[in-house]
Amino acid sequence: MFITIEGMDGSGKTTALQKVKEHLESLNYKVIMTREPGGVQISEKIRDLILSKSGEGMEPWTEALLFIAARKEHLEKVIKPNLEKGYIVISDRFMDSTTAYQGGARGLGVDYLNNLQKTILKGFLPDLTLYFKLSFEEAEKRLSNRSYEKNRLDEEGKKFKEDVKNAFEELAKKEPQRIKVIDAEKTPEEVFIQTKEVILEKIKLWKK
Amino acid sequence: MFITIEGMDGSGKTTALQKVKEHLESLNYKVIMTREPGGVQISEKIRDLILSKSGEGMEPWTEALLFIAARKEHLEKVIKPNLEKGYIVISDRFMDSTTAYQGGARGLGVDYLNNLQKTILKGFLPDLTLYFKLSFEEAEKRLSNRSYEKNRLDEEGKKFKEDVKNAFEELAKKEPQRIKVIDAEKTPEEVFIQTKEVILEKIKLWKK
Ligand SMILES: Nc1ncnc2c1ncn2[C@@H]1O[C@H](COP(=O)(O)OP(=O)(O)OP(=O)(O)O)[C@@H](O)[C@H]1O
Ligand SMILES: Nc1ncnc2c1ncn2[C@@H]1O[C@H](COP(=O)(O)OP(=O)(O)OP(=O)(O)O)[C@@H](O)[C@H]1O
Ligand SMILES: [Mg+2]
Ligand SMILES: [Mg+2]
Repeated sequence: MFITIEGMDGSGKTTALQKVKEHLESLNYKVIMTREPGGVQISEKIRDLILSKSGEGMEPWTEALLFIAARKEHLEKVIKPNLEKGYIVISDRFMDSTTAYQGGARGLGVDYLNNLQKTILKGFLPDLTLYFKLSFEEAEKRLSNRSYEKNRLDEEGKKFKEDVKNAFEELAKKEPQRIKVIDAEKTPEEVFIQTKEVILEKIKLWKK
Repeated sequence: MFITIEGMDGSGKTTALQKVKEHLESLNYKVIMTREPGGVQISEKIRDLILSKSGEGMEPWTEALLFIAARKEHLEKVIKPNLEKGYIVISDRFMDSTTAYQGGARGLGVDYLNNLQKTILKGFLPDLTLYFKLSFEEAEKRLSNRSYEKNRLDEEGKKFKEDVKNAFEELAKKEPQRIKVIDAEKTPEEVFIQTKEVILEKIKLWKK
């Protein structure tokens, strides 16, 4: 089973996932957590290109294609082999981020990027995607408490982030079977419980 | 006017283009010759990634997406600005190479890659494309006389190159208005004359 977690920066994805992984392991599930570029050399080099200063002024389409190229390698070299070994693979961000950021906020088209990725990643779409829904204001508040070096994409303004949020919500409405919305405004404990429950329910269905 | 030249390695594209450029300039046309990565820093870095040894084992889709990403920058940063200044821009290889190599020979789909690139490059497709048609045997003969360091893609075998050739021919049949076939088996002088005449005819139509 392949699960992905999506949502704005600061929506608490990584925080919740750490607890979810421990919990699933305590129930004897084999779980692997990954995030792009997934430790794949080519993907890492591609990502460096996108985020580096020499990436400034890059065309939106160039940015989108590079992300998808890195993702394809991550899928084939890390995600698929682990799924084949019987792991539950949970990826911290995946295809919907490109659909929301480049398709939505950069204007390349939500549907177009969603369909393009489905073609390219064929056969290994996420079985379940959790969208961590959070207001812009709360995300900013949380991020201001976190100290880390900002990259080119983190530095986009409010309009950009609202567009990303709208695109995630459009996607969640279009694919309610795959994408489940998590209320990320809640406390860390409550977010963990929601996340865990949605995943366990999917595992139950899967086993039948 | 935007012109592209396509065909297998060794089909004589670069040889003919040098003479065509001089000829067009002698007729007082402003001509710029370019070839990917077009001197664009990001595109050069992308190309290095594709052709380097660390690119070995790269997924066909990753390769295709990287080429298209580099092309998009080349188009926006080099080709378009020169077209806007009134130059005839001639590119030594362009979108049809990706369609033939990755779409055809690597099996991603000729139509799919052709349409994808039309969407991504929208508005600036070539006005004219010359396909240099040459048999595999003659291309090999010519290349064996040429000494240069082979990269990852040059080292593919006969089956691969025949598939590329078939894909170019399929494309030329599908888009006879845009793609004109040049008989590249002929002497350098005869190939030059064919090339020049097709281009001058297009320029005449263009001016009307
Ligand atoms: N439910 C929560 N309530 C309040 N603060 C939270 C909650 N979850 C996480 N945080 C805090 O918010 C900040 C961002 O959380 P986290 O790093 O998990 O977000 P993220 O979605 O993984 O972000 P990114 O996309 O940048 O990786 C951290 O400082 C974290 O401690
Ligand atoms: N019409 C011709 N007849 C015979 N030999 C030719 C002809 N045109 C070019 N050659 C020779 O064939 C070799 C390949 O030519 P050239 O480099 O122009 O091909 P190309 O299509 O640009 O290849 P590439 O795709 O690798 O750049 C060179 O050694 C060149 O001198
Ligand atoms: Mg995180
Ligand atoms: Mg050449």
